[in-house]
Order: sequence, then structure tokens, then C-alpha cells
Amino acid sequence: MSGQYIRDGAEIYRHSFAIIRSEADLSGLPEDVARVAVRMIHSCGMVDLVDDLAFSPGAVSGAIGALRSGAPILCDAQMVASGVTRRRLPASNEVICTLNDARVPSLASSLGTTRSAAALELWREHLEGSVVAIGNAPTALFHLLEMIAAGAPRPAAVLGIPVGFVGAAESKEALAANDLGLEYLIVRGRRGGSAMTAGALNALASEEE
Amino acid sequence: MSGQYIRDGAEIYRHSFAIIRSEADLSGLPEDVARVAVRMIHSCGMVDLVDDLAFSPGAVSGAIGALRSGAPILCDAQMVASGVTRRRLPASNEVICTLNDARVPSLASSLGTTRSAAALELWREHLEGSVVAIGNAPTALFHLLEMIAAGAPRPAAVLGIPVGFVGAAESKEALAANDLGLEYLIVRGRRGGSAMTAGALNALASEEE
Repeated sequence: MSGQYIRDGAEIYRHSFAIIRSEADLSGLPEDVARVAVRMIHSCGMVDLVDDLAFSPGAVSGAIGALRSGAPILCDAQMVASGVTRRRLPASNEVICTLNDARVPSLASSLGTTRSAAALELWREHLEGSVVAIGNAPTALFHLLEMIAAGAPRPAAVLGIPVGFVGAAESKEALAANDLGLEYLIVRGRRGGSAMTAGALNALASEEE
Repeated sequence: MSGQYIRDGAEIYRHSFAIIRSEADLSGLPEDVARVAVRMIHSCGMVDLVDDLAFSPGAVSGAIGALRSGAPILCDAQMVASGVTRRRLPASNEVICTLNDARVPSLASSLGTTRSAAALELWREHLEGSVVAIGNAPTALFHLLEMIAAGAPRPAAVLGIPVGFVGAAESKEALAANDLGLEYLIVRGRRGGSAMTAGALNALASEEE
């Protein structure tokens, strides 16, 4: 095998981002969204991810402002929380995932939904002005929209990036079509997931590339 | 937004896997590899992932046998470890990620490589017969090959699924071309990542879909 490869972490990052910026068509994106897109592409290796990005005009600036003000990050999956680089966070923000809370299985039974969706019931006290990051479960994103439509406090921005074959595309379109005034960033279609979502969060947390 | 979506977690899984099996061309894969491919596809939403899969004949059976015998899982990234569903593990296997060990930064400096690669130096006592899962850093995969070429103990199988633009494709090709007798499963090209890698591990851990 080859002994010839780049071993300097900072150089690998620089080179990676240069390749992404040379190959991805970022021309249709505002600069703040482009920076987020670059890190999302970095997390999945696919420059055509840009084609599936959709967002409300204030989503990225809203999320950045919220994080700087100390807003918590609410994640539907432990992998998303695990992917947030803590030293990038501007205000030692809390990163919260309630999925493994002991109350969730019985909440899921009583609500007749998935554990991923039921876990959001434990977000209520943190929701106001938060940054929500849904990177796994479409049911969680549907449930968030239902909670907010029913009067729950509103996050500053919602990253809606669940992945998969059942409900993922639909839940993301429902977020993008929301008439609740929610700021959002989504990846249309089936693609998504925890790595891409954590990549977006890490871009929002710090401008450092 | 729609009130019409599937809220039953088990039904969502069944439906997802049925869609994947109907859309993905699994005909070229042995049944044990197909089962792993289905979960990898599930983790990323892309049925064409099959086209980039490559593996040695004994990789999947070797990994399954090792896990049943209690072998540890060695992960290059915390997100990979975080994505392993512990209740699927057949022998309460240890899931080890040494990246955040306090010794790693100085090891990386002295070896002149990334922290992700240097962290593997702390795997040595666990390597023999283990299941290695590299889902993030190409340098970790390159370093693994170097360590084993230099005489380090050999894992039962290596999942080589790092993602990205610098070294990912090359490190995976180097694994597939290894003359060390290593059993491997890779995703050719830039695609990969922690979710896909955790999906593969979860398939190897249990036949339950």
C-alpha cells in the first residue's frame, strides 16, 4: 500500500474544502448558506447535495445568532449530538438528545408514535429560540411540526435532514411548506442523516473552516 | 402539514427494507452481504450504494463469527461507536473508540500524523480477531494497513468506509488491494461515513431486520 498520503489534519481540511468549492455549484447560494453546504458536502462526499438543499432566507443567520446567544441544540439522535464538535460552539451551548430518557418508551406507547417522535415531548422547556437538528427520524420532524402547530414554543431554526425511504422526503417537504413561520434548512428527498446534520451544525457553530 | 404518516417504528422498518429490497439490485451479492448492504442503504437513503460495494469472500461471515465469539468493535470515530445499537450485539461486545484518549494528541505529534490515525496505536492490545470499523478518517485506514504490515495483530475483518475528498477513495482501494490477507468490506469512492458504517455493524451484529 501507498506510503504517500497527506498526514496533516489541517492540510486535509484545507484541501478537502478547496476541492468541494471547486467542484460544487455554490453559485445559487448566499455565502452563509454556502459555508454550511460545504461542510454538509464534506460529511457525505457528494457535491451534488447542493441540488437538494432548500432553506428559508433567515435560517442560517437565525441559527448562528441563536447559538451565539447561548441557545441549546436539540437533536433527535445520539449520533447527531455525538457529531457536534464541542470546541466549535460559541457559548458552550448545551447539546440535548432526549431519545434515551427513561420516560420515552411509555410516552411513545401513550402517544401511539415512535420513540424518536415521543422524545420531542421532553424538549418543550428548551424549544424557545433553540436550534433543532433532526438528522434521523422523519416521525420526529412530523411530530415537531404538530407540536408547534398546537402551540409549543418555537425554535430559532430547524435543520430537517432525516434520511430514508419512509416519510423522510415527505417530512422535509412538510417543514419547507410550514405556515408556522419556522426558519428551516432541509435536504430534499431521501438523503440526509446524522453526519450531514452534524456537519451543518458544526458550520453554524463557527466560521472557522 | 399532513397527519398521515406511519407512526409504528417496526412497520417503518419493514416498509423501508421492503422498498430497499425492491429497488436495489442485490442480485450480485451473496445473501449475507446483501443483508449488510440493505442496512447500509437504509442509513443513507441511496440504493445505488450497491454499485460501490466491494468485499472479500470471508468478510461478512468472519465479522459475524468474531462478534458472536465476543470480539470487540474498534471504531475510528465516536459517531460510529455511538451508532452501534448495543442491544443487537450478540455477546455484549465492547465498542472501543480511542480518539479522545488523552494520550492521542502527543502520539499524533510524535508520529507526524492525524489524531484519527494516531488513536489506532492504542488499539494494539485489542486488534487480534477484532472487528475494525473505520467510518470517518482515511488516515486511520492507511495507518491500520501500515501497522498490520509492520506486524501488528490482525483483525477478523475490516470495514473500510471513510468518507470524503482527500484519501478516502485511495485508502479504501489500498485496503481492497491488501496482500496481508485481511478480510474487508469497502464502499469505493468518496461516499462513506459514520452512519453507513454503523449500519453495517448493526447488520453484522444481528440478523434481525
